[in-house]
Amino acid sequence: MLDFCKCSCVTLLTTADEPESHILCDLNEPLVDHTEGQLFLNDTFKIIMEEVLCKGTDIKHKVCEWKEPKELALLLDLELRATGEPQHRLLQRVQDVAKYSIKTSHPRFMNQQFGGVDYHALAGRFLTEALNTNLYTYEVAPVFVLMEAEVLRGLRQLVGWTEGDGLFCPGGSASNMYAMNIARYQHFPEVKSQGLCGLPRLNIFTSSDSHYSVKKGAAFLGIGTDNVIIAPSARRLCSFSVSVYQGAVPFFVSCTSGTTVRGAFDPLDLIADVCEKHKLWMHVDAAWGGSVLFSKQHSHLLKGVYRANSVSWNPHKMLVAGLQCSALLLQDTTDLLRKCHSANATYLFQQDKFYDLNLDVGDKSVQCSRKVDCLKLWLMWKAVGSIGFAERVDKAFNQARYLVEQMKKREGFHLLQEPEFVNVCFWFIPPSMRGKEGMVAPVIKERMMKQGTMMVGYQPLGNKVNFFRMVVFSPLLTQKDMDFFLDEIERLGKDL
Amino acid sequence: MLDFCKCSCVTLLTTADEPESHILCDLNEPLVDHTEGQLFLNDTFKIIMEEVLCKGTDIKHKVCEWKEPKELALLLDLELRATGEPQHRLLQRVQDVAKYSIKTSHPRFMNQQFGGVDYHALAGRFLTEALNTNLYTYEVAPVFVLMEAEVLRGLRQLVGWTEGDGLFCPGGSASNMYAMNIARYQHFPEVKSQGLCGLPRLNIFTSSDSHYSVKKGAAFLGIGTDNVIIAPSARRLCSFSVSVYQGAVPFFVSCTSGTTVRGAFDPLDLIADVCEKHKLWMHVDAAWGGSVLFSKQHSHLLKGVYRANSVSWNPHKMLVAGLQCSALLLQDTTDLLRKCHSANATYLFQQDKFYDLNLDVGDKSVQCSRKVDCLKLWLMWKAVGSIGFAERVDKAFNQARYLVEQMKKREGFHLLQEPEFVNVCFWFIPPSMRGKEGMVAPVIKERMMKQGTMMVGYQPLGNKVNFFRMVVFSPLLTQKDMDFFLDEIERLGKDL
Ligand SMILES: Cc1ncc(COP(=O)(O)O)c(C=O)c1O
Ligand SMILES: Cc1ncc(COP(=O)(O)O)c(C=O)c1O
Repeated sequence: MLDFCKCSCVTLLTTADEPESHILCDLNEPLVDHTEGQLFLNDTFKIIMEEVLCKGTDIKHKVCEWKEPKELALLLDLELRATGEPQHRLLQRVQDVAKYSIKTSHPRFMNQQFGGVDYHALAGRFLTEALNTNLYTYEVAPVFVLMEAEVLRGLRQLVGWTEGDGLFCPGGSASNMYAMNIARYQHFPEVKSQGLCGLPRLNIFTSSDSHYSVKKGAAFLGIGTDNVIIAPSARRLCSFSVSVYQGAVPFFVSCTSGTTVRGAFDPLDLIADVCEKHKLWMHVDAAWGGSVLFSKQHSHLLKGVYRANSVSWNPHKMLVAGLQCSALLLQDTTDLLRKCHSANATYLFQQDKFYDLNLDVGDKSVQCSRKVDCLKLWLMWKAVGSIGFAERVDKAFNQARYLVEQMKKREGFHLLQEPEFVNVCFWFIPPSMRGKEGMVAPVIKERMMKQGTMMVGYQPLGNKVNFFRMVVFSPLLTQKDMDFFLDEIERLGKDL
Repeated sequence: MLDFCKCSCVTLLTTADEPESHILCDLNEPLVDHTEGQLFLNDTFKIIMEEVLCKGTDIKHKVCEWKEPKELALLLDLELRATGEPQHRLLQRVQDVAKYSIKTSHPRFMNQQFGGVDYHALAGRFLTEALNTNLYTYEVAPVFVLMEAEVLRGLRQLVGWTEGDGLFCPGGSASNMYAMNIARYQHFPEVKSQGLCGLPRLNIFTSSDSHYSVKKGAAFLGIGTDNVIIAPSARRLCSFSVSVYQGAVPFFVSCTSGTTVRGAFDPLDLIADVCEKHKLWMHVDAAWGGSVLFSKQHSHLLKGVYRANSVSWNPHKMLVAGLQCSALLLQDTTDLLRKCHSANATYLFQQDKFYDLNLDVGDKSVQCSRKVDCLKLWLMWKAVGSIGFAERVDKAFNQARYLVEQMKKREGFHLLQEPEFVNVCFWFIPPSMRGKEGMVAPVIKERMMKQGTMMVGYQPLGNKVNFFRMVVFSPLLTQKDMDFFLDEIERLGKDL
């Protein structure tokens, strides 16, 4: 049975025909049965392989199995009860969860910036889960403390920094927030102990297409969303007169490299000039576009990024590292990150340890428990190399180009703009829907979900009514998938 | 080979003797080879089973394989290069990562509050990783939106609330921070848009044994660590005169149910009286002790918890759900969580969707991407039932009791105090070390790490010099492990 496990413990632990229930609180017996547990895990692995990774990536199968919430709740029988269930019932549950979940690795999942699958990354994630440790001390995470430093070094190098600092954070929103907090601390170190009370009002600058996490961050940090000054365009961000905001003190500019919807890149060099002149912290939110730095051909889109003070970069998006994988990178070499966030808890960060205390990186974070997010990226980087990543990026650009060209040949498709990146934003308007453009996307979206053939997102933006945003980056995508995409939009919308 | 995968796609995808390298940017071919990838994942799974789950939980094997950082860096060959590596080399890397990582599932890992393994939880975590979705909309996470709501409901029920709100957060520190932010918003809704500037100074109350995340949170939220008023003891927290703090406005009291080091429980009912009187938000940090609510016998330790406004509870600690799994629970039924955190991003939370928009829970969070942390807990709850969890909690208490009794029979062991919970804090002082008590623990710790026989934490606290903190909760622990623990402390310290 357990032929994958050749070590002695399995046979040792085999408990033959022992009854299932444990004697309550017998201190001689563990409450976990390894053999049974490992069998369950093995069976789950088979289901994952079959349902999620084989069928779930096969275009002959659906990308989603739409159910109304009430029906789905019934199907899943979610209720938590007093007594447990037998293994076969639990395996059925695993199967159901897989069945009714969205197949985000499917080539026809283009709904978000995290579709696709990379098997090396996934292997790294399984290993991370099994090792279940916390990235705060060298003591409990020796491998990952060193590995995280190396991965951050590799990413910083692409930004153009030979030195610096950084941390993996639970998502790009958190990375952006961290940057804001560190910038604030650099300008006003007393804020850590005394808070904002007594300080002047602070201002943050960003452009209208920036990610909403800038506003969420400003609210969370006590700065306030009204104090996020939104430039109507990225270029206008540079011409902002930073002193006119009614006595407020500007301290932070958040540029975007790869905006969420349009995939636009702010002119970093121009903004850097303004930041230098006014001594503002320059942050680059490259959560989406950062991975372009791997590509010789396209890295010019982030020209000047090395002049930033901080960069957020999400390998869980374009590199398909898997959720979550977001790096905050800092140019700082003065230990600002630790100074800003440290609390020096003695139960974790004892001062009389027998190894270099700088390896206990946990106090750089505002988290205590912190997941290991570096292994998956490290393993895939080892597997394909920087060249492999560059190839993926270049292919994504070409694929987006191909899609745009095909779109131009077809009736009814209207580009929002020529894409700068791999976001292809467009309206599809059948003749009957002229004047009712904004109503098309929601209907087509509902139809595709209910038929399960594909998933793509739509949204309004500024004064533009609902348009589709296709994001082309998954290494699973082929030209055929692009063609299918266009055919399918037409098919779903033709009778409107 | 791939016998676990019976669906057609594998055979379809088998690419026989095709060369490894892809034609650069051929749009007809995906950059991911499913067959090769799935084989790699399968091989990784075998290594995980053997190294992490069999050997890694077997007392005949070491809990850690200590290496000096420099040596370990060399052994791991961490450097990220331009070109990729062949599969067998990558598998060796998987093996190395497993080998040199701490075996946190090992029965002799008692270093932290997350040791042990639960196979159902682990199966849920593997499935979560494979499904790789984001808990923000029903569209991309239909199963998990419903499941999270159900799990939160189950946890709230144990707190004593039939209604309410909540969210899984990336760790207990984040949950505590969320609570602070929501309380602040409830007191001063304008803070979201205007920030703290113009508001009076705010005060937070907590006791000296509370977790450091209260201070970290206060700093991050712009409140300032000096504005966290630390009561010298939990009882004193109730007698605080809340009006004397120089014009500051108190708004938040953070009680602890199960303190990190001592495992103490604040008197919630008494504190609730004070909070009610002064209209303060009462938060209970039950990150560590919350799971006690499953036990009929011990839940009195949290008596009065239902009177709180919010509760943080980490099933990744005592329930061994695996990192990360932390719930923030709210008594509120006025949608405070969403109002406080929402940014209404149109690209995610379209208003013209074809399903109930309340199912798009993402805007309750300050994260954008949010990992699915509920499946692992749901699956293990289904597997063992509330009764199974209660059994584990009761057993942990008994196990701790047993350890204490044995300790009292041995020379050289001195309890810091009678434990209230499963934290057993003690000094071990061989005769020669009288007067040098604080120096013992670091030496024993170094020895146990280097020999790899077990891991347990130590710390100073207040005016107490270094003492060990043993946390007894893993369902893998037996009486024999307790005996071993004491023998081993003696063995490692006897020649001091
Ligand atoms: C430009 C940009 N910044 C930040 C984020 C937030 O990243 P995360 O979802 O990891 O919080 C996103 C996510 O879509 C993004 O597109
Ligand atoms: C009482 C208490 N609160 C909060 C936390 C923080 O939880 P996390 O490590 O998930 O951030 C801990 C962790 O040790 C804790 O013991």
